[in-house]
Amino acid sequence: MSATQPRVVIVGGGFGGLSAARGLAGVPVSVTLIDKRNYNLFRPMLYQVATGLLSADEIAGPLRSILSRQQNVEVLLDETGSIDTVQRLVHLKEHVVPYDFLVLATGIQYNYFGHDDWRRTAPGLESLDDADLIRGKVLLAFERAEEIAALDRSDAERVRQLLTFVLVGGGTVGVEMASTLAEMSRMALAHDFRHIDPRAARILVYEAAPRVLPAFPEVLATKARRHLESLGVKVYTNTRVTDVDAGGIVANGERIPAATVLWSAGVLASPAGQWLGAPMDKSGKVIVSPDLSVPGHPEIFAIGDTAHVVAPARNLVGMKVKEPMVMPGVAQPAIQEGKYVAALIRRRVRGQEPPRPFWYWDKGDLAIVGRTYAVADLRFVRFAGFAAWIVWAVVHIYFLIGFANRFFVILQWGISFLTKRRQVRVFPGQENAAQAP
Amino acid sequence: MSATQPRVVIVGGGFGGLSAARGLAGVPVSVTLIDKRNYNLFRPMLYQVATGLLSADEIAGPLRSILSRQQNVEVLLDETGSIDTVQRLVHLKEHVVPYDFLVLATGIQYNYFGHDDWRRTAPGLESLDDADLIRGKVLLAFERAEEIAALDRSDAERVRQLLTFVLVGGGTVGVEMASTLAEMSRMALAHDFRHIDPRAARILVYEAAPRVLPAFPEVLATKARRHLESLGVKVYTNTRVTDVDAGGIVANGERIPAATVLWSAGVLASPAGQWLGAPMDKSGKVIVSPDLSVPGHPEIFAIGDTAHVVAPARNLVGMKVKEPMVMPGVAQPAIQEGKYVAALIRRRVRGQEPPRPFWYWDKGDLAIVGRTYAVADLRFVRFAGFAAWIVWAVVHIYFLIGFANRFFVILQWGISFLTKRRQVRVFPGQENAAQAP
Repeated sequence: MSATQPRVVIVGGGFGGLSAARGLAGVPVSVTLIDKRNYNLFRPMLYQVATGLLSADEIAGPLRSILSRQQNVEVLLDETGSIDTVQRLVHLKEHVVPYDFLVLATGIQYNYFGHDDWRRTAPGLESLDDADLIRGKVLLAFERAEEIAALDRSDAERVRQLLTFVLVGGGTVGVEMASTLAEMSRMALAHDFRHIDPRAARILVYEAAPRVLPAFPEVLATKARRHLESLGVKVYTNTRVTDVDAGGIVANGERIPAATVLWSAGVLASPAGQWLGAPMDKSGKVIVSPDLSVPGHPEIFAIGDTAHVVAPARNLVGMKVKEPMVMPGVAQPAIQEGKYVAALIRRRVRGQEPPRPFWYWDKGDLAIVGRTYAVADLRFVRFAGFAAWIVWAVVHIYFLIGFANRFFVILQWGISFLTKRRQVRVFPGQENAAQAP
Repeated sequence: MSATQPRVVIVGGGFGGLSAARGLAGVPVSVTLIDKRNYNLFRPMLYQVATGLLSADEIAGPLRSILSRQQNVEVLLDETGSIDTVQRLVHLKEHVVPYDFLVLATGIQYNYFGHDDWRRTAPGLESLDDADLIRGKVLLAFERAEEIAALDRSDAERVRQLLTFVLVGGGTVGVEMASTLAEMSRMALAHDFRHIDPRAARILVYEAAPRVLPAFPEVLATKARRHLESLGVKVYTNTRVTDVDAGGIVANGERIPAATVLWSAGVLASPAGQWLGAPMDKSGKVIVSPDLSVPGHPEIFAIGDTAHVVAPARNLVGMKVKEPMVMPGVAQPAIQEGKYVAALIRRRVRGQEPPRPFWYWDKGDLAIVGRTYAVADLRFVRFAGFAAWIVWAVVHIYFLIGFANRFFVILQWGISFLTKRRQVRVFPGQENAAQAP
């Protein structure tokens, strides 16, 4: 790495940041990728770690080893505190990194709509730590219910509370979690307890919008809801959760006792927009120019969930979509934006013409609603059921980072599919968890 | 489970407790297994989780599912606080469990010789949480060294401190950790960093006894030491560590700066002996009768690391050992003692003659000293090298709980062996870790 080469700093090692870094392979720049975690996480399958089907190691790859062969990239593990756009410096905790080009790909966090104290009680599924926490919370609820049922039979209400699982938010993550919890309690755990029946667990989904999976066409959302209900999940739409505490929630003015509340209702962008003082939309995403640069800063780019991008689109089979669309908060726009920014920087460094404005290749949306049931909206065609599940499985396996992981996940799924049992149900942090009330 | 059947309470779901529970299959008793963790851990391979070769899920099985088909067993997740030997009650946090027979298999913790404040700085390898913590500590040390080397080249001393790994204790765990750290830094991590050379990492083992692997014959200990040294590990025998803090250790009056200090020097029994007020040896193990019962309490048994057992022994090929021996703190005595106690309870419940006193089938000792090097003392024969490693691998795979785990571990090892890379190097708790000084 030569000190005289332009320095590209990428903040965030998610889909967007990693795609930008890879796109700069072979370009005469020195790239510094900064993340506060040492791994790239395959978030679409994080719910499987949270419910004990996969191990954390199987859906996360260390950034350092993913990029180890790309000689013009260095990886730093640190947290970004602020950005000095005049001196062109990224301020980390104790250090400072200068840049010539800056790519912000810092992602999102869940939106608690001003109730940040709910975060402790109702965790969202953002990182491997969250997945571990949620796995522990869910399994511990069953454990406590079993103990009370075994040793203090008078407390049936507490058992009912422990076996009630509330999902706030009926988007992709809420639906995935609900269906997996349902199948976990109906199948994997069914025969492990002596005093409770895990099949009696109540799984409740609350969605403020008129339907689950609001990003999907209504016909698929209806099918998804029906499938959820066939698994025993109760779905409440047009229902806002107005209070959350350790004992349960309040929805529609009614108190629902529940020991486990999980959050996936609405997202908020990372503070990247505040670092820059740039124009933002109402969820805090930076409103970028058609070339994904931040207005007034041709050397700074925001991508993925950090950016509010409106772009023309084509569908899977190449047909142009009528209106420019707002990029949804999924993996594909982030990956394509990262690639685009890398191409733009490459051209600028080489003194070539800038590329045409970003356009989105919209491959559609997938959501899993059961062990063998999914919904697929590929734009030119939409379908639900086992066929959609096959598409889901192939796409997700394909995008998993690293050969070994892919291989292991297929095996793990195969075994779990055949045995209808989950193999992985241990969880860390039990010493502390056991001491909680 | 009938309420009129004798109630057997087993405290601890390690090798001993699980073996006792399994030995009671089909016996007309109702068994309650209590553990503060929900898993049985294959501790002999825990160091592989700590160094990132395996996932936690691969060497731990949920007690509940291991025992789900044995209808006379229930599993409770809770911590034992005390025992009332008059009323025959086990006191948990909030509940009380009555027993007719009690089996204590509560294991050990590391002995910090009165310096319990060292535990925070120099963790031992006891649970999955410890393995996660140690994995994070080790990887974070490399990360910080890289960052300083990249951004603040003046601080070479801090880099050296970060790349110094101290193992206090040269027993099996210390030797395994040292050799794995050595190979991890020389092979797996070698090409992942741009500013530091992981191969420059210093790995130091301090042992108070005159040799590493004090439980092994001198000839094997010498070979093990030589192999460790060939991997670049520095071994200090006859050396006591007299101080530990966040900056390093003091040994032989000399201060060694080191960011990572791991502890495996001496063990202390769990407080089971104190619960009973029973006679204990100096490490707190309950001194039991020849039938493993606690003196004065024919209905209470202590096994595994909870008990000080002196018993006659036969070796692997059935030859009698001359003198009765003190049971070592490894898996085999715990497993055999659990089986013995189950047989004794079975006979007593059925009104049969008590069994003959416990005797130990001593299959020998194994320790791994490198990726393909181990030492084996099978009593009737002893050898070191690749052949011993094959024996180690076969034995350890065989004893792994659960088919799927075994299968995955073989695969994981195979891949890692062929690629000389570790696949799993992510670690939880980075949000907090990154904020530490």
